Amino acid sequence: MKTDAKTVMNVLGGQAKAAAKAMRVADTGVKNRVLQLAAAVIRREMKEILAANAMDMQAAEKSGLDAALKDRLLLNGDRVDAMAEGLEQIAALPDPVGAIDQLRYRPSGIQVGHMRVPLGVIGIIYESRPNVTADAAGLCLKSGNAAILRGGSEAIHSNRAIAACLRRALVDGGLPQNALQLVDSTDRELVGALIMSDAYVDVIIPRGGKSLIARVAAEARVPVIKHLDGICHVYIDAAADAEMALNIAVNAKTHRYGVCNAMETLLVHQDAAALVAPIVQAMLDKGVEVRGCERIRAAAEGLDVKPASDQDWRTEYLSPILSVRMVDDFEQAVDHIATFSSAHTETIVTENYEAGQRFLREVDSSSVMWNASTRFADGFEYGLGAEIGISTDRLHVRGPVGLEGLTSQKWIVLGSGQVRQ
Amino acid sequence: MKTDAKTVMNVLGGQAKAAAKAMRVADTGVKNRVLQLAAAVIRREMKEILAANAMDMQAAEKSGLDAALKDRLLLNGDRVDAMAEGLEQIAALPDPVGAIDQLRYRPSGIQVGHMRVPLGVIGIIYESRPNVTADAAGLCLKSGNAAILRGGSEAIHSNRAIAACLRRALVDGGLPQNALQLVDSTDRELVGALIMSDAYVDVIIPRGGKSLIARVAAEARVPVIKHLDGICHVYIDAAADAEMALNIAVNAKTHRYGVCNAMETLLVHQDAAALVAPIVQAMLDKGVEVRGCERIRAAAEGLDVKPASDQDWRTEYLSPILSVRMVDDFEQAVDHIATFSSAHTETIVTENYEAGQRFLREVDSSSVMWNASTRFADGFEYGLGAEIGISTDRLHVRGPVGLEGLTSQKWIVLGSGQVRQ
Repeated sequence: MKTDAKTVMNVLGGQAKAAAKAMRVADTGVKNRVLQLAAAVIRREMKEILAANAMDMQAAEKSGLDAALKDRLLLNGDRVDAMAEGLEQIAALPDPVGAIDQLRYRPSGIQVGHMRVPLGVIGIIYESRPNVTADAAGLCLKSGNAAILRGGSEAIHSNRAIAACLRRALVDGGLPQNALQLVDSTDRELVGALIMSDAYVDVIIPRGGKSLIARVAAEARVPVIKHLDGICHVYIDAAADAEMALNIAVNAKTHRYGVCNAMETLLVHQDAAALVAPIVQAMLDKGVEVRGCERIRAAAEGLDVKPASDQDWRTEYLSPILSVRMVDDFEQAVDHIATFSSAHTETIVTENYEAGQRFLREVDSSSVMWNASTRFADGFEYGLGAEIGISTDRLHVRGPVGLEGLTSQKWIVLGSGQVRQ
Repeated sequence: MKTDAKTVMNVLGGQAKAAAKAMRVADTGVKNRVLQLAAAVIRREMKEILAANAMDMQAAEKSGLDAALKDRLLLNGDRVDAMAEGLEQIAALPDPVGAIDQLRYRPSGIQVGHMRVPLGVIGIIYESRPNVTADAAGLCLKSGNAAILRGGSEAIHSNRAIAACLRRALVDGGLPQNALQLVDSTDRELVGALIMSDAYVDVIIPRGGKSLIARVAAEARVPVIKHLDGICHVYIDAAADAEMALNIAVNAKTHRYGVCNAMETLLVHQDAAALVAPIVQAMLDKGVEVRGCERIRAAAEGLDVKPASDQDWRTEYLSPILSVRMVDDFEQAVDHIATFSSAHTETIVTENYEAGQRFLREVDSSSVMWNASTRFADGFEYGLGAEIGISTDRLHVRGPVGLEGLTSQKWIVLGSGQVRQ
């Protein structure tokens, strides 16, 4: 069994590597045409895609998949159309590949600079959302990479149908169809083989729940760009504007609950204690359960604040629950974040220049904000056009990962016959 | 034994992480002062350092270390002074940390940009050169990181003496001494424990021979920035200037033999066959053994060209041996490079604009050059000021790694109360 998975992956890997060679030098116009063709094919084949999805939904029904998972798995006309639109949007983005940066003369007379280049072969491992097949493929192809996709087994028919559309577009547009390959099997050994294929695959991006990502990161031989927890903080400083603090806290918690950039813990400076009751009231009005430290419970006397335990500071609720802690000063807030944050996104609300500057400098998270909602930590909001995920790693790329995160840089040197002295 | 190594490393790791927190926000001036102090302490303690080195040399003598290794291990007044000077040069380099880049307004009204930040804790694993202790520490500290150094056991006394100077300077300059820690033991299990310490160490940089690097890369749980082979090519195109081609080929091969950016294989377009004999003659005059394909041997008739085997194309000689192959055309040259190169550095010699542009675009190596010697692939020549190594990886950093390669970027967001709609 193990050998079989490895053999299968060697074939896929070899094909991907060959396709990557062509993708690396593919003209921007050709890549864009393929993406536009893919959108057209997906719209044309909508019936087939929905029929394939119906098979997956039927199987999900039989196996008793829970409602949330079934909703992620479900495709309908609007969702298929959104996939096609997503590909058109990626086609419209600027191509990062080939961009030359900081070309400058050196004392020796050579010119030295960077040229942006694709990473090569990207493996994407994801769960039940079939739209990831189109989104991830679109980003990988636009950035000049070949992709090997491994979706959840419950979405196999949907993924197969979508991948077929993309591969059709590759061929029609004049690029190798193996620039996109689906691991067309539900055999779990293949995931293991994929993440060990460092001879063929340059990076693995797992998209999905924490347990999937943790497992991939722990076992992979191929480098992984990963996104673990999003335990995000809002810190209301002594010098916060009251209305702004309320708005940002409410937005960061309640705009959407199940997202990684939602606030999970609110920190309030003791000199801003007067803001606690109105903010807690606003949260309760939105149906949020509030868990506070003793001082917060005192400041919100008469309101339903449950006692927070240490475990609360470590928890990514992804639901209408909020933990709130009062801190003595700026240092304690930064310390709390350093101890409990997952280094995803934190924001300070303050009118104080020094506090804001220090927060930007001292907090070591992938996004650090001043007077803005944590919900802005997002590839679209940052202007990346699209994102393949949010990295909580430190190497290569941090925070929202767009097309540029799927590329690397090589050095280029232009000379006129220079030699080393 | 295994548990012991892990325990030791957990202590070192915890101390490094605590020190990294202070290093992350240390002012540029403070870091520079520490580096200058370190240079002064090293000069002041020269006698002690040389005495420690003498102990290592004595042990090396006893254990029968070979001459090349002994030369690497040896310190003298000049070499110790060069270490101190190196630290002063690093102090004079611009600080990459805190630099804010591409801050721009988004439609929502927030400003979004990047801030450059240290990586955190860097593990350096190296062999017998004691000067790496000072060089690597200097680069890690300047870039705001904490370092854990593990040098070769044959250099333990020298490394201990040098590290003591640096730690002294850290304390005197007002930074935590644990920002630099030496794994003060020759126990090999500790290397294993270091490369598995992903809870404490953010990146490992192995410096040394291929087998060390391959072993670290294969076993590490911590991400590795590695440098494997340097099988570098010079391709003499049909439209090459004859004199330039000769100069670049001779410089790339003979300027220094034992370095990773030396040429190992020369490719010559068949229309440039007339250049083969003079270049071979020049190589032979320099004492280089030349191994050629059949067509090269014919083109250099009467000269001593040994037959090249397939194995030659795959070999990093690091010595006065050169393999030479004639190619039919540009495509065959690029194909040869794609097949046999270690993706370190390649150069094309041509006066033809299209060939040069295509070479820059199509060759996928960490440095790609046009009309310049491969020997320029170097941090100093590129203007990095200093380098901690040359990466042949694709993620995070490629080619010469300077201070910036030891940093990452976080996103910063400046708002005035914006929330997501």
